[in-house]
Amino acid sequence: MSDHGKRLWGGRFASAPTEEVLAFMAGRDVAAIRPCDEALVPYDLDGSTAHATMLMECGIIPAESGRRILDGLAAIRAAHDAGEFRLDPALEDVHTNVERELARRIGDEHAAYLHTARSRNDQVLLDMRLWERDVARAIAAEARGLAEVLIALGREHRADIMPGFTHHQHATVTSLGHVLLGFVGGLVRTVERMADWLGRFNRCPLGAVTGYGTTFAIDRECVAELLGFPAIEEVSLDPVQTRGEAEAELVSALELGVQHAASLAGSLILLSTTEFRCITIADGFSTGSSIMPQKRNPDSLEVIKARAASVVGCSAGLRALAGRSLFGYNREQQWSKYIVMDAVREGLPCFGILASVLQTMTVDADRMAALADRGFIGATPLTEALCQERGLAFRVAKTVVERAVALSVAAGSADRVSSEALMQALAEAELPIDVSSDDVRAWQSPELVLSRLTHAGSPGPEAVLAAAEALTSRLGRCQV
Amino acid sequence: MSDHGKRLWGGRFASAPTEEVLAFMAGRDVAAIRPCDEALVPYDLDGSTAHATMLMECGIIPAESGRRILDGLAAIRAAHDAGEFRLDPALEDVHTNVERELARRIGDEHAAYLHTARSRNDQVLLDMRLWERDVARAIAAEARGLAEVLIALGREHRADIMPGFTHHQHATVTSLGHVLLGFVGGLVRTVERMADWLGRFNRCPLGAVTGYGTTFAIDRECVAELLGFPAIEEVSLDPVQTRGEAEAELVSALELGVQHAASLAGSLILLSTTEFRCITIADGFSTGSSIMPQKRNPDSLEVIKARAASVVGCSAGLRALAGRSLFGYNREQQWSKYIVMDAVREGLPCFGILASVLQTMTVDADRMAALADRGFIGATPLTEALCQERGLAFRVAKTVVERAVALSVAAGSADRVSSEALMQALAEAELPIDVSSDDVRAWQSPELVLSRLTHAGSPGPEAVLAAAEALTSRLGRCQV
Amino acid sequence: MSDHGKRLWGGRFASAPTEEVLAFMAGRDVAAIRPCDEALVPYDLDGSTAHATMLMECGIIPAESGRRILDGLAAIRAAHDAGEFRLDPALEDVHTNVERELARRIGDEHAAYLHTARSRNDQVLLDMRLWERDVARAIAAEARGLAEVLIALGREHRADIMPGFTHHQHATVTSLGHVLLGFVGGLVRTVERMADWLGRFNRCPLGAVTGYGTTFAIDRECVAELLGFPAIEEVSLDPVQTRGEAEAELVSALELGVQHAASLAGSLILLSTTEFRCITIADGFSTGSSIMPQKRNPDSLEVIKARAASVVGCSAGLRALAGRSLFGYNREQQWSKYIVMDAVREGLPCFGILASVLQTMTVDADRMAALADRGFIGATPLTEALCQERGLAFRVAKTVVERAVALSVAAGSADRVSSEALMQALAEAELPIDVSSDDVRAWQSPELVLSRLTHAGSPGPEAVLAAAEALTSRLGRCQV
Amino acid sequence: MSDHGKRLWGGRFASAPTEEVLAFMAGRDVAAIRPCDEALVPYDLDGSTAHATMLMECGIIPAESGRRILDGLAAIRAAHDAGEFRLDPALEDVHTNVERELARRIGDEHAAYLHTARSRNDQVLLDMRLWERDVARAIAAEARGLAEVLIALGREHRADIMPGFTHHQHATVTSLGHVLLGFVGGLVRTVERMADWLGRFNRCPLGAVTGYGTTFAIDRECVAELLGFPAIEEVSLDPVQTRGEAEAELVSALELGVQHAASLAGSLILLSTTEFRCITIADGFSTGSSIMPQKRNPDSLEVIKARAASVVGCSAGLRALAGRSLFGYNREQQWSKYIVMDAVREGLPCFGILASVLQTMTVDADRMAALADRGFIGATPLTEALCQERGLAFRVAKTVVERAVALSVAAGSADRVSSEALMQALAEAELPIDVSSDDVRAWQSPELVLSRLTHAGSPGPEAVLAAAEALTSRLGRCQV
Repeated sequence: MSDHGKRLWGGRFASAPTEEVLAFMAGRDVAAIRPCDEALVPYDLDGSTAHATMLMECGIIPAESGRRILDGLAAIRAAHDAGEFRLDPALEDVHTNVERELARRIGDEHAAYLHTARSRNDQVLLDMRLWERDVARAIAAEARGLAEVLIALGREHRADIMPGFTHHQHATVTSLGHVLLGFVGGLVRTVERMADWLGRFNRCPLGAVTGYGTTFAIDRECVAELLGFPAIEEVSLDPVQTRGEAEAELVSALELGVQHAASLAGSLILLSTTEFRCITIADGFSTGSSIMPQKRNPDSLEVIKARAASVVGCSAGLRALAGRSLFGYNREQQWSKYIVMDAVREGLPCFGILASVLQTMTVDADRMAALADRGFIGATPLTEALCQERGLAFRVAKTVVERAVALSVAAGSADRVSSEALMQALAEAELPIDVSSDDVRAWQSPELVLSRLTHAGSPGPEAVLAAAEALTSRLGRCQV
Repeated sequence: MSDHGKRLWGGRFASAPTEEVLAFMAGRDVAAIRPCDEALVPYDLDGSTAHATMLMECGIIPAESGRRILDGLAAIRAAHDAGEFRLDPALEDVHTNVERELARRIGDEHAAYLHTARSRNDQVLLDMRLWERDVARAIAAEARGLAEVLIALGREHRADIMPGFTHHQHATVTSLGHVLLGFVGGLVRTVERMADWLGRFNRCPLGAVTGYGTTFAIDRECVAELLGFPAIEEVSLDPVQTRGEAEAELVSALELGVQHAASLAGSLILLSTTEFRCITIADGFSTGSSIMPQKRNPDSLEVIKARAASVVGCSAGLRALAGRSLFGYNREQQWSKYIVMDAVREGLPCFGILASVLQTMTVDADRMAALADRGFIGATPLTEALCQERGLAFRVAKTVVERAVALSVAAGSADRVSSEALMQALAEAELPIDVSSDDVRAWQSPELVLSRLTHAGSPGPEAVLAAAEALTSRLGRCQV
Repeated sequence: MSDHGKRLWGGRFASAPTEEVLAFMAGRDVAAIRPCDEALVPYDLDGSTAHATMLMECGIIPAESGRRILDGLAAIRAAHDAGEFRLDPALEDVHTNVERELARRIGDEHAAYLHTARSRNDQVLLDMRLWERDVARAIAAEARGLAEVLIALGREHRADIMPGFTHHQHATVTSLGHVLLGFVGGLVRTVERMADWLGRFNRCPLGAVTGYGTTFAIDRECVAELLGFPAIEEVSLDPVQTRGEAEAELVSALELGVQHAASLAGSLILLSTTEFRCITIADGFSTGSSIMPQKRNPDSLEVIKARAASVVGCSAGLRALAGRSLFGYNREQQWSKYIVMDAVREGLPCFGILASVLQTMTVDADRMAALADRGFIGATPLTEALCQERGLAFRVAKTVVERAVALSVAAGSADRVSSEALMQALAEAELPIDVSSDDVRAWQSPELVLSRLTHAGSPGPEAVLAAAEALTSRLGRCQV
Repeated sequence: MSDHGKRLWGGRFASAPTEEVLAFMAGRDVAAIRPCDEALVPYDLDGSTAHATMLMECGIIPAESGRRILDGLAAIRAAHDAGEFRLDPALEDVHTNVERELARRIGDEHAAYLHTARSRNDQVLLDMRLWERDVARAIAAEARGLAEVLIALGREHRADIMPGFTHHQHATVTSLGHVLLGFVGGLVRTVERMADWLGRFNRCPLGAVTGYGTTFAIDRECVAELLGFPAIEEVSLDPVQTRGEAEAELVSALELGVQHAASLAGSLILLSTTEFRCITIADGFSTGSSIMPQKRNPDSLEVIKARAASVVGCSAGLRALAGRSLFGYNREQQWSKYIVMDAVREGLPCFGILASVLQTMTVDADRMAALADRGFIGATPLTEALCQERGLAFRVAKTVVERAVALSVAAGSADRVSSEALMQALAEAELPIDVSSDDVRAWQSPELVLSRLTHAGSPGPEAVLAAAEALTSRLGRCQV
């Protein structure tokens, strides 16, 4: 009640959206975006710790200074975990902040060794790779979570008949389970793309320095191992001058993934209109109007579409950045940091919200079944039955049924081919075939049709179960 | 000095970048982005004030409540100006915040009248139009400012000879003044586009309500007049369902404008390389390296390129948003607010920074003049002189000089056509024409060539002055 | 019949699509795209004719050669008009083709003068400006034509009640006329943008030569006048190095215009679904299926969406091109020619096709009116009536009706607030107000509501007529 | 000579571009684009052959008709191979053309069976997958080819000293071999992305029919095997409604690959300027000017940039398409066919052309070495030497050398830190360290520096060889 009081709507709602959902929908109206480097603090500490360890082990810096640096970094991490290490905006970036804080804690004479054989260029590169590695895993987890919800719902609704749409028109009979499973592949591919990304970019860039290495005899393999990278970047210049490419591929994959979520969101919006009435979105994912008392708007789904568009923009921005660069590092590449973070902030939460919308929506199976008996939806299976049961060639049968549809419409039907129309069409085509009116009715019956859809990938209940199994197994093979 | 201490570079710099320049270059590393609705508070108060005034004048709400509402809004504005009115994140948006604050100040019984005949849809639409109107004027002012700096520098450098480049190669002689003026047109067109935008979108949308008007007998013209709009939107549904279009056009124009700035920035970066050495960017717009002691990097210019790419991304995001909408309002359009604000934050400062870079850079006129005497840059005017002074047809003269260039290269010259080579080429072409070696030299002389470039728009000093005048006059005709 | 025989569908169609519509829908499956320079032949001849005339008048080339050149160009034009001048792919481009053909016709000794004081750079620039000038006028004409169709239909359907949608949900009552007019503004702005484009780019670039002018004393104003340009480009370098900007602005405006067409197309697709059943697309703009006998798909509308996406891509391509350029001409700018031509080929026909779809579709006014009485669509006017007729403050009335909606739903209604529910809600709110059940019914009646929507821009019949008048007048003010 | 006669330039060129290079550069000026379905004929025949085989084997169609269909398809293939089967534009698409041709050859009564259990939707889907599979392999092969050229050149130039650039400024010493290898990673990743794409999309979609399967008991695994697909698409609806996704991922990967080519092209353009003079592009990849006799323009490289921008546009177009779709097939997806073909036509040839440019360009090693001794390029190794040889902490050493750079500049040097400056800087910092002037000179010596760059990925000759080996091995592991 007190919650409702804060907003300009909500009086007709049984339950209100949670804070998480409200935040998802409210966007940036009253929410600030944190400085980007705040997200990098732990990664920067990880990187510096590994770098300092290597410098010590290689004898490049004095052991005493190395030890103090490691202690200092550990202390900063503890402070950060306790919320007591804040970035000073006067100090340019996280790297400068950490180095200055280290100097404050252990003294300039020791801290001065940390930046040996390293530049901010490769430091930020490293921080971003570490951050992105976690992000790639998070995207995979979120997409996988949504896929699993869809698979579970697909199994549940495998026998719920509904019209299959093409061109927004009734095409033929399908099951809700089949339609839901139809959105799983895109998410599975999103998970796979994250695995591919990791295979490509989970490599240690440190040691690139300015892009041209260093005369210090550093051990890049050692740093890679300390940070859990299975390999190093082979050429120091590559990751420096292609900065933004790892980001572009990550965001591009996220974009495709979120686009799948947006397509599904759009489809649910359509199914929840007054005219379709197939599903009802739960109150917890709807909003009201400041002026219209009756409104229950699928804002959560619309926001998924909005966020998908934002990610499209980020993706385009990263590509525009890339298009400007020549060899070597140039400052414009720094902007790739902001854009990839924007994309992740906008896109990542979409999967989970959509999963919740799906899990809480109400399905009107009767309404869907009723719709599935309209608009000559049985004409195609009727055609196929004429082939299967009466031996007509497909092209012949199709021409006959086309004519029968036209005759049925002329006779006032909008939904099914009548027996009379079919017989007349057969006669016109000089096909002396007999079909009983029971057959004509049965062959267009959604229930019978669904039961005959048995091949791999088709909408029949058994096929849906088999496809659910196949998708689950494919998901399982993809370790991220 | 203390400033230098904060950064990891700067020891070789005579003067440090200002805070404004540092902020421009530092981007979002350690800087947060404010909630978007903070920028809308004054506009929301303007809109509510005009709306309430109209409701009172039309007798739609009680005069007493109307007066209290106006007083309350004035008080909130005063609080806001004093920095004492802060948006509460629990209250969704600026509109809810203002309405609740009004209720707190004047009581629910009066505040409850403010939302009569209005929805948040058209309220945010109005706020954005008011904000964008100011932004359009600001973009025009910034682009105009940069254009004026370029015009002034163009006049100043009208006789400074330099190579004109095509394909990054020496093409023919030009003046630095001409090259600088070559970037003015794009900025003039940016100013004109803002004027066009205002002609199109400086219209009052209020009264759209949900897009379908209201049964209250509101007076939209009255509101428009109070808010300084020369007209109203003709159909209530249009601005609601095309929300994002005004933003897309604004950002698209900004994008083109910033792209011009980025092209100029890229050109300056090229001219400031060790190899070109034509200009030196001032210390105040350069940065150093955390590792390389000698570096003076043109980061300010690179950041202009980065920001241009960001604006490209915002523009793409707005178009992606638009591509998803059907009729009526849908929540995704709300995201256009965030994207247009991002674009303006990234793009708007570029013009002023670039103007300052131009005003503070050092030009090495001798170096430029020396370059302008290389790479057969006089071959084209030599060809033209053979036409003008010896009556050859152009295509004939060009073939002769092409051959003469090849002969000169074979004889070891990389810079000028020799008299011998020209005479041999003429002989080979069986053209019995006599040209003295003095003529050959003179006709390729940069000074003489520049003096002969006199037609409208050409690089000669007089033509540059005339073009500067024409551009100034065109700018003057564009009132924004 | 013979026509049907060619396709794999059509048996149920009363009338087949025309060739124009089929070509629009078939895209590039079996249609080739012509070489781009074929479209430029007449413009290239225009440009060369004007250039040669000026060279003669200025005494830069011999009068005799000038006359022969003009005669030769006229002969080539005649050959082209007769379909007898074909571009030879071995000759690089239209400029080379024309110059070589001229030489063939009048002899090298005269043709050799034509290229005096001109480069292919500024020649193609000129050709494109001339072509684009015609294209801008064509876009304006097409958008204007669609706008006029919408205005006429808007007037016709001004009293046809339908639900106004927001968030794809029933919001409040509107008229089909209002909804149709809601798409006019975007088209008017498209026309205006073409006028703005012409104001900006209808300037003669010839005389730019390589970008750095020429030592010949050419008269650029003369050429401009001969070609109908009201002005010249002020600085020779500007149009050369910003090539692609005129294209980007043109395509960007086309993109916004086609996007409006696509939004309308998408809305019509929705209204023509089995579930909405508000309109039927004519057979002539539908296609069938190769397998489903009953299908009548709104392919023409879907193709508008596809083409809008293509134009988005072209627009992005032009921006990507621009992002790569520095000063002076670079070959990549040549690609702007291809991209702008692609965009126009894809986008321009959309307006006319959509106009024809609108003019031939069937509207089911009864169905729309029936839908307009569902989904609590009268709740907002009921709220407003409580304010107007019973003096409640809006926020109070809205809270009461929200509660009444919830109570009505609980009592089994999905469409209207019942009198009982409203009285209970008023009682709960301790508002001692009396409302008869007749009033409750009437205040939610779509007919009454529509008659009360009278303010400027609203959906009532009179307001629709006034808006149609205002839009017509705005269109009339825009001379392109 | 006769070849030169066709063009308006070339007189100074020793060798002319080949037809392939000219076609690459000339773009679409005088070249048409073929109907898209022409490329699909063989794939459509493959698909129909496999489908008919399966229908026969499953007993769905009569064996006699099946055999005749197979014979007929084989005959059409023979006709196509002989150039005697041409698409009739009146017949909508390749599918209709093939089916009608089949009927013409074997009679309607047999041909009428071919379309059993199949729709054009899944037929085009199949054709595109087969075409794209070949394209993916071709992209991989082209990118691999360019990578191998770079690796070979990298090995060859491993000891050729040049300046390493950051921010377009001299950063530190590197080798040309290292710089060339710096572009290999992006190409290796392009090859890997094609392998990933194949892993994801090399699956048979046939059997999707309209998206909702068929009541015929088809055997999708059988068709997949016949066509060399290792798997089928798990859910029939997925590939139908996500059509455009396979295209978007393919084009997105191509886009990143071509962008690498464009970055390298841009870098080569820079290195070939009069000012840099490090390389010379061969005549065969340059063009002249129609007006400037001396010009040798790197058009081939600029066109790579142009084509990269075109691919960016195609990529954006595909994403815009995707953003419009809901569930089921919609006609707009057909446009993905045209866009992916545009992208491949524009992008695919870039790799090979660039490889040829690299193989034929001339490198001026002396000039590069001379540049590598300028601009305080030795300041960083000098700093590192102070740490390594004199035990300074890095931050301390860097501050000293920064000061020494400033002092050297003040004393008139633009290239190297002088011994005096360094000693003064050490003194100012109260560091009682002795460095001989020989040491100061040696530590900045490019040769010495390069020899000290030995760690993995760095520019030293041995490291370059090792990296070449590692990249070759990574390429070898990627089987496409």
